[in-house]
Amino acid sequence: MRQHIYADNAATTKLDIDAFEAMKPFLLEEYGNPSQPYFFAKKAKIAIKKARETIAECIGTEPEHIFFTSGGTESDNWAIKCYGAAPGDVKVIVTSSIEHHAILNACQSQKIQHSIHYLPVDKNGLVSPDDLDKALDWSEKPICSCMVFLASIMMANNEIGTIQPIKELAAVAHKRGASFHTDAVQAVGHIPVNVKDLDVDMLSASAHKFNGPKGVGFFYDKGRLVYPHNDGGSQEDGRRAGTENVAGIVGMAVALRKNCSKLEENQRHIRLLEDRFMGLIYQSGLDFIRNGSEHHLPGLISLSFKNQDGEKLLHRLDLMGISVSTGAACDSVNTQISHVLKAIRVPDDYVRGTIRISLGKNNTEEEVDRIANNIIKICSER
Amino acid sequence: MRQHIYADNAATTKLDIDAFEAMKPFLLEEYGNPSQPYFFAKKAKIAIKKARETIAECIGTEPEHIFFTSGGTESDNWAIKCYGAAPGDVKVIVTSSIEHHAILNACQSQKIQHSIHYLPVDKNGLVSPDDLDKALDWSEKPICSCMVFLASIMMANNEIGTIQPIKELAAVAHKRGASFHTDAVQAVGHIPVNVKDLDVDMLSASAHKFNGPKGVGFFYDKGRLVYPHNDGGSQEDGRRAGTENVAGIVGMAVALRKNCSKLEENQRHIRLLEDRFMGLIYQSGLDFIRNGSEHHLPGLISLSFKNQDGEKLLHRLDLMGISVSTGAACDSVNTQISHVLKAIRVPDDYVRGTIRISLGKNNTEEEVDRIANNIIKICSER
Repeated sequence: MRQHIYADNAATTKLDIDAFEAMKPFLLEEYGNPSQPYFFAKKAKIAIKKARETIAECIGTEPEHIFFTSGGTESDNWAIKCYGAAPGDVKVIVTSSIEHHAILNACQSQKIQHSIHYLPVDKNGLVSPDDLDKALDWSEKPICSCMVFLASIMMANNEIGTIQPIKELAAVAHKRGASFHTDAVQAVGHIPVNVKDLDVDMLSASAHKFNGPKGVGFFYDKGRLVYPHNDGGSQEDGRRAGTENVAGIVGMAVALRKNCSKLEENQRHIRLLEDRFMGLIYQSGLDFIRNGSEHHLPGLISLSFKNQDGEKLLHRLDLMGISVSTGAACDSVNTQISHVLKAIRVPDDYVRGTIRISLGKNNTEEEVDRIANNIIKICSER
Repeated sequence: MRQHIYADNAATTKLDIDAFEAMKPFLLEEYGNPSQPYFFAKKAKIAIKKARETIAECIGTEPEHIFFTSGGTESDNWAIKCYGAAPGDVKVIVTSSIEHHAILNACQSQKIQHSIHYLPVDKNGLVSPDDLDKALDWSEKPICSCMVFLASIMMANNEIGTIQPIKELAAVAHKRGASFHTDAVQAVGHIPVNVKDLDVDMLSASAHKFNGPKGVGFFYDKGRLVYPHNDGGSQEDGRRAGTENVAGIVGMAVALRKNCSKLEENQRHIRLLEDRFMGLIYQSGLDFIRNGSEHHLPGLISLSFKNQDGEKLLHRLDLMGISVSTGAACDSVNTQISHVLKAIRVPDDYVRGTIRISLGKNNTEEEVDRIANNIIKICSER
């Protein structure tokens, strides 16, 4: 049987073996509860401290701004639901129409009490800083002192890979007196992310997207802008209670440090694979559109083939031992055309033929050749 | 060096080796995102399904009522914050004064909009069903149609081990038209818990308290009484979004099944150790009070020694390689006298001399002898 090819790294990634090895002692021998004061819990406590320092360093901040969560969805929910949520306050949230459902549905849950605005994107999936500026310009609208403004724009899109001009967008938000959150779940560990340079106030990340374990993530909060999320014990400085997932946190930090220390090397490798893959697809003469912008996540390739069925394509590739995704990722239950593909207005005769190939550091040239050749073969059949 | 003795199983437990072995493939090879439709993600998806079935069976319900969370704190927050939380509704929450901080602080966060009532406990830490009945009797108070009633009483207390008459309390709540939630974090996997027999509507549990991994728990919700907690993808039937912590969920189910299948055996073993330990303490002639009720968690021993300092006692035992806890568990930052010891009115000259020994299935007779003898030795010093 041929070796399985995994090309869905935007959905989840393989746990780095060094991360697993670092987790093992905290799953086995060092099981002490880090909140306890005795010696036996000390290694767990120190491990969490070190993990926080590592993660802070990787994104260019200090450890006191890093809060561990159960993943990207929790981090996103924390930002949207707990920002400026004092009773009586009215939040004005400006976000984009191509955010992950963790943001969109968290916003949806707030719409009865708060005011939510969705920015459009251009055909490459880019948010315009001018649009953000206009949405945050309340100079001619009624305004009261109980209004708080939040902009939340994702750093890189999970379906089409488009990387937003976050630095520019954050500057616009700040100019208008809004705080700026970015869902960086797809970006952290894959492209350079420096929160100081970007000047974002809050950021969400998820370990399993950068070769860490599932069920753990982090939230960056520069100025303690959010209210506590899980109430209970005094963990995470009293802002996110619950006994720490020590092994998960340790694994996350090791995976992130490793990815960040090899960021350029990985990027180069993945870009080469991407070029090789795209070269084969272009040569094939197939009629397709590549979705996303020039400036996109390395290895994230969203293709819409004319008059094809993405679901069938995925299924055929699956039978050949190749795992890729259709339009919407992380969510197989919802098989409608994704909100992202709608927002970038992929033409009707192409949109259903969309698949996402997301290459990672573990992929090889042989693998991308096999993926490309099989896609070409399937799409060329009549 | 003498072997370390762990006697703080109420704070956290050692991961069962079978649970670890079951987790390993899902940390290593089977890393597919269970939401994806391809073959490679199938094992993860099936593993989650099986884990849900196992857990449901262990607590006497059906899989569709089990929702995976990041732990007990999240489950408790979900119950308190998302129960009947439609905008405009006023929740009347009746809870006890000895709940875990996950419940107390979640209630605290609701007090501006909702009405919170705290029931007292007797000197054994027991909540009286009559008190609950009175608190839920609004027949002579103003009431409007937008009021929803919730009672939340923990199954077993983490500091003193008292097991509440949950079946009776739930019946009282239902009689008064209230829903009933129980924080069963300390109980599940240690005493028989059957949600149908107890007739509770919601229940919280945490894996690391029953020899499962940290960072994962579950929430039982019989009648879909709570609003979604984390908004985002369609995981957990759209009620708790976020890519599943597959390995954690699998480990939790294996640990729970194992503990539940050996419940009587473990209980017998732990009760014998407890009796042996208490025999030595009684024989010593030390002046102490044993906190909690006759009906308590196996192996949870809360002792208040007259004119002693629990912190110092813990520290001395720690130097001898013995891990126990002082009054308040899971939380070393807060060194004030715990709300539980206050609620049961431990006399002033005893309360500061409180330690909690919590024995587990892995403890041995030799270990309890060493713990008891060292406590006696330290407390007998002048």
